[in-house]
Amino acid sequence: MNLNLAVISGDGIGPEVVREARKVLDRIAEKYGHEIHYTDLLMGGASIDVHGVPLTDETIEIAKSSDAVLMGSIGGNAATSPWYKLPADRRPEAGLLKLRKSLGLFANLRPAILYKELQDACPLRKDISDKGFDLMIMRELTGGLYFGARETKEVDGVMTAIDTLTYNENEIRRIARRAFDIAGKRRKKVCSVDKANVLDSSRLWRKVVEEVAKEYPDVELTHMLVDNCAMQLVKDPAQFDVILTENMFGDILSDEASMVTGSIGMLASASLNDSKFGLYEPSGGSAPDIAGQNIANPIATILSAAMMLRYSFDLDKEADAIEQAVSQVLAEGYRTGDIMSEGCKKVGTTEMGDLIAERV
Amino acid sequence: MNLNLAVISGDGIGPEVVREARKVLDRIAEKYGHEIHYTDLLMGGASIDVHGVPLTDETIEIAKSSDAVLMGSIGGNAATSPWYKLPADRRPEAGLLKLRKSLGLFANLRPAILYKELQDACPLRKDISDKGFDLMIMRELTGGLYFGARETKEVDGVMTAIDTLTYNENEIRRIARRAFDIAGKRRKKVCSVDKANVLDSSRLWRKVVEEVAKEYPDVELTHMLVDNCAMQLVKDPAQFDVILTENMFGDILSDEASMVTGSIGMLASASLNDSKFGLYEPSGGSAPDIAGQNIANPIATILSAAMMLRYSFDLDKEADAIEQAVSQVLAEGYRTGDIMSEGCKKVGTTEMGDLIAERV
Ligand SMILES: CC(C)[C@H](C(=O)O)[C@@H](O)C(=O)O
Ligand SMILES: CC(C)[C@H](C(=O)O)[C@@H](O)C(=O)O
Repeated sequence: MNLNLAVISGDGIGPEVVREARKVLDRIAEKYGHEIHYTDLLMGGASIDVHGVPLTDETIEIAKSSDAVLMGSIGGNAATSPWYKLPADRRPEAGLLKLRKSLGLFANLRPAILYKELQDACPLRKDISDKGFDLMIMRELTGGLYFGARETKEVDGVMTAIDTLTYNENEIRRIARRAFDIAGKRRKKVCSVDKANVLDSSRLWRKVVEEVAKEYPDVELTHMLVDNCAMQLVKDPAQFDVILTENMFGDILSDEASMVTGSIGMLASASLNDSKFGLYEPSGGSAPDIAGQNIANPIATILSAAMMLRYSFDLDKEADAIEQAVSQVLAEGYRTGDIMSEGCKKVGTTEMGDLIAERV
Repeated sequence: MNLNLAVISGDGIGPEVVREARKVLDRIAEKYGHEIHYTDLLMGGASIDVHGVPLTDETIEIAKSSDAVLMGSIGGNAATSPWYKLPADRRPEAGLLKLRKSLGLFANLRPAILYKELQDACPLRKDISDKGFDLMIMRELTGGLYFGARETKEVDGVMTAIDTLTYNENEIRRIARRAFDIAGKRRKKVCSVDKANVLDSSRLWRKVVEEVAKEYPDVELTHMLVDNCAMQLVKDPAQFDVILTENMFGDILSDEASMVTGSIGMLASASLNDSKFGLYEPSGGSAPDIAGQNIANPIATILSAAMMLRYSFDLDKEADAIEQAVSQVLAEGYRTGDIMSEGCKKVGTTEMGDLIAERV
């Protein structure tokens, strides 16, 4: 198969972790007889440094004409980096938001998995973490407060800022269907999270999700208020299979869930559009404080590459091979610093990439 | 002193826990020579049952003319209660939102404290909970998405729902000042939480909070994005003193923080207006499943009564007496079922109220 990939290494640890993911992909290509073509693109701070803006139209076009985008991470230290002296719509993160919207990436999949081997890193009490968990947050990514009209203006001499949270039934329906599709291949449970006791958008959300549920009689649907969900993720994450929610709630809950695993350096993510196209990136940030030291954990990015093979190319066997190689290095006791524990073998970013590539 | 209190017992366990708080207040009145006058008011489901609406104008007027409101809890089981067959603006919770707005209760104080005696209930790993924590979430309560314009309508034949998030500089300034005032009496740290990389309202929020910070040179201000805060509350809650945030973020984060303590049944809250007036209620919900069984924990409501004495009446000595009585019963090993652990003495709602009242 020919895979035409756009690669956005980005800022901070981005280039280091993407390099390891490519190493693993190259090994897969060799072993399974695929042909991968990479096109490097600039986004975020790296693009600001060269073009003055975090994302150029040309970059969007090239990304669009690729089969999938592999990304590292975007942004720097907001307190010290000159990028954050720019107006908000020209900072690194604005590039990412624009790319999501331009590519129609409405479905953001964020798995939060407690790996048995890494249970010690889980911040929860042992009797809770003993149960293990493997949940998937399905976050709507191109609607809601992130993309509604906004304005800051004087009203009767008083500075006033307005953001708008809008959803229509089509936007809700397509993300709900994705969530039910995925739940159907997992443990067949969707928990839809909203604030229907306050928001009109949440009441519409709940109504449309209930309609969609009728198309999936074998998947169980429950509803939960967002404040309660923030509690349940701490109390008993094992209760969840797929959590379906809107953009802002998904931002908050997926970060909370990733921290509850205790090993963000392990968590992949996918952002998909209507077809097979997707952008794949680690859940964690650009971690500028540890950039360039060969200590970042590349596994989240490597697992994101596996998600790419699975969701954009239907290469399930190849994706499995990567995931099994990751399990194997963990079982053999290799760890980067962020997930290190007693009795394990500490390795750097490149060594971890090598170890996984060798086991593919 | 004469204390003229409005009492909203409300639904579920509300009446049971309020009864115990009154018991403790009566003991305080007797011991310190105060005169407390109670006026019982209906709100939420209890008001729907009698008046068909969750809050009448008359109730608002009586609440307004009182010195402070002591509340139990509002609402029932959304899946089974007939209250939830009503349109959204006539359900129990709508009464609470209307009361907050009518009384101008813009400052919601939600302490999240890990009690040493209850450390076993904390869902966090022991090395994290060993550090203990005592943080205060200051949530803006009468602005933002909760009270912005909202509408559901067809746009080009597609059902579309819109909610609006609005803040003006005055609304932000007054809640920020409250947060800095309170931090000044605590550990002198304010962490302001927003989503300034996306929202206009958050950028205005950050700007105004920074202006206010200049009035308080002895209090340290930091900023944190809401998704990061949801992570930090799980990873290291001890880092926080006062968390200052807008309405919806505060709803989510305060519930997360309360669950992180592991003992919601212990957590009080206060909602204050510009003057000394306030509404005081436990952080937890109405728990209809355990209502009427004399097993609910009344301590959150009793501690809310202590907050009332402190914030609305400046009766610090009396508030201290209640808080010390609570510490004492815990130290003596008395527990309601929700916070029960091995070797402790299990008591019911009324017994717990008696024990605390006796020790006041
Ligand atoms: C960088 C930021 C705009 C982004 C978001 O809020 O969506 C990030 O937090 C994420 O979750 O991918
Ligand atoms: C009942 C509901 C409207 C309310 C809120 O969201 O404010 C509750 O969750 C709270 O936090 O007091």
